[in-house]
Amino acid sequence: MTPAELDGYLAEARSLTLAEIQALVPRDERYGPILYDLMLDYPMRSAKALRPALCIATCRALGGQLEPVLRSAATLELYHNAFLIHDDVEDGSESRRDAPTLHHTHGVPIAVNVGDAMLALALQPLLDNMRFIGMGKALRVLQLIARMARESAEGQAIELHWIHANLWDLRDTEYIRMVYKKTAWYTFMTPILLGGTIAGAAPARLMPLRKFAALLGIAFQIQDDILNLTAEGSAYGKETAGDLWEGKHTLVLMHALRCATPSERERAVSILAKPRPAVHATQADGPVELQQLLDSMAASGEISSSAHQTLANHAAALAGNPRPQKTVSDIELLTHLIRKYDSIEHARAISRRYAQRADDLLQRCDWLAPSIHREFLDGLVGFVVTRDR
Amino acid sequence: MTPAELDGYLAEARSLTLAEIQALVPRDERYGPILYDLMLDYPMRSAKALRPALCIATCRALGGQLEPVLRSAATLELYHNAFLIHDDVEDGSESRRDAPTLHHTHGVPIAVNVGDAMLALALQPLLDNMRFIGMGKALRVLQLIARMARESAEGQAIELHWIHANLWDLRDTEYIRMVYKKTAWYTFMTPILLGGTIAGAAPARLMPLRKFAALLGIAFQIQDDILNLTAEGSAYGKETAGDLWEGKHTLVLMHALRCATPSERERAVSILAKPRPAVHATQADGPVELQQLLDSMAASGEISSSAHQTLANHAAALAGNPRPQKTVSDIELLTHLIRKYDSIEHARAISRRYAQRADDLLQRCDWLAPSIHREFLDGLVGFVVTRDR
Repeated sequence: MTPAELDGYLAEARSLTLAEIQALVPRDERYGPILYDLMLDYPMRSAKALRPALCIATCRALGGQLEPVLRSAATLELYHNAFLIHDDVEDGSESRRDAPTLHHTHGVPIAVNVGDAMLALALQPLLDNMRFIGMGKALRVLQLIARMARESAEGQAIELHWIHANLWDLRDTEYIRMVYKKTAWYTFMTPILLGGTIAGAAPARLMPLRKFAALLGIAFQIQDDILNLTAEGSAYGKETAGDLWEGKHTLVLMHALRCATPSERERAVSILAKPRPAVHATQADGPVELQQLLDSMAASGEISSSAHQTLANHAAALAGNPRPQKTVSDIELLTHLIRKYDSIEHARAISRRYAQRADDLLQRCDWLAPSIHREFLDGLVGFVVTRDR
Repeated sequence: MTPAELDGYLAEARSLTLAEIQALVPRDERYGPILYDLMLDYPMRSAKALRPALCIATCRALGGQLEPVLRSAATLELYHNAFLIHDDVEDGSESRRDAPTLHHTHGVPIAVNVGDAMLALALQPLLDNMRFIGMGKALRVLQLIARMARESAEGQAIELHWIHANLWDLRDTEYIRMVYKKTAWYTFMTPILLGGTIAGAAPARLMPLRKFAALLGIAFQIQDDILNLTAEGSAYGKETAGDLWEGKHTLVLMHALRCATPSERERAVSILAKPRPAVHATQADGPVELQQLLDSMAASGEISSSAHQTLANHAAALAGNPRPQKTVSDIELLTHLIRKYDSIEHARAISRRYAQRADDLLQRCDWLAPSIHREFLDGLVGFVVTRDR
């Protein structure tokens, strides 16, 4: 499947999913403009809609029909967008899919509530599933969703703990386990297992598909980390190097720290311990500008050196966050280390290795008859490690 | 049932529920100290555990057994505590059950994730329910939980919209509808309907129980609003008058605004439009102190009047939050209006009226045979409107 055909498959799955989501979200004006309208905000922004496409492709590659899988595929996209809203709050992210994050525009309270409401709304169609795909399959789908939500929260907890405690003495396997839980479960494993379950696949076929999904999910997240460092903002839809500002753990940064000299490493770890500056930091910048103003007034003799001392102390206390914040030159130092030690190449090689193992596994699934849906799954392996968005 | 017996019933239900919750929450050290440990934080704090008690009492009053209802009762308490964590983030609350809120101690990212993980974890026992109470009942329980989560989020959205838009031109019926969704559904209706469903009650019996729960839930929330204004911090477990600082809509405040003169009303609404000060507002206070320092330095001649002008402008810009924050005297003005117009008495009378209607309804349920569980439900009506915590 060519990249253009792959894009076409994704676009079709996305348009089917969006129509389903619009049918699931009530058009109820009584909750003000801050509930159901906002649920559609992230889903309607430009996005790949990878999860529903994976779910649909797996179901159909196994001989299943579109109709019974579409509702679950749309539910996955609802869950995904709910998690994105909460993730953006948790990470303090500025932009998502080329627009300000929901909490950035509407505040944390409304963003947290919209995410909760989406999680609640997503439960109903999964219960209604009973009528469409039968009790047994509907229950297995619900079990998968419960597992997915737990795995994601556990992965997120591991990452938040590392950031909170500024832990960097980590092995690559620890990172792999974290992204297996944080990303692979909900971006690849659940969509593929859901599609397989709804198609009625036997456990002996779900097993290799599950492993394929785990390997591809890990490759996907590593490539995502790389894109975060290298992509242009507008193609990627998030801020470039946002992960460095947020102090996120990636194979890239972990490799650079491992190769670094003790003094480079010490410097980098102390940078990573610093919080990122507030997004539109008028409050945070103000005191710094005041310090500069005082310095120039003292230099020109406009204020005495003793007045300067008194006021500069006050300005420092005002600026004085006990923990100074990351600066642009801090981020430059981190990117310098990453370049110096070829850490992106290191991570890219690991990502390719996981994708290769995924591909090997899929090629052995000879019970997946040739179809456009199987071609999509085949094509996705290459897409995951070469994509630029 | 005497108040002491009622407390005893609540305490026993609570201890059964906590044992169940501790069995549901994994003891898994691998997610750092910031996931499963924190899930137990709020539930283990001193609390009434009203929801599981209601669920258990209804089931047993209808002749159901304890064992099959306990798991669902504990799940309700997990949901409740997850919502509390997110509510505290949404409201910017400082304390909960006599201790700092979770986000206050661990930050918003960890608090949002712990809440999400609790919502995920609560789904699993509801699925496992199939084995214990049978497919039909387990499904109806899941439907009720999905409805509860949706109603709560809708109620929360209405309230957030009112606060966000500083809407005060509201009728009491609009408030009643909001708390019916925000409070009654998840504090009274779902526990009671769950207990009734698991006991196998017929729809003709669930209907009046549902109405009883709605009426009592509304009475409960009005009394909660009154307690927020009148209770001592330590008995109540939240900050006194926190609702005024947060600008929350209550029958009390709505009544005072309705009775107020046009100028009182205009003043009060402009106060309510102001955000509450940040919790430990060193940043917010700093620029004000700087202005005072500059004034005194100019008065003593330590800096010239032109330097004073330049620097005072800068300090004003620094302090100058475009929206000034609520002050202690603002809150005093609001409490003055509430006293002046006897607004607490107005709200108390409405709360009692709803409780009376709930009581009348319950007395007509002659198919609820005498038992300690029915006595608990009877006793609760009085408790709801006379409680001081």
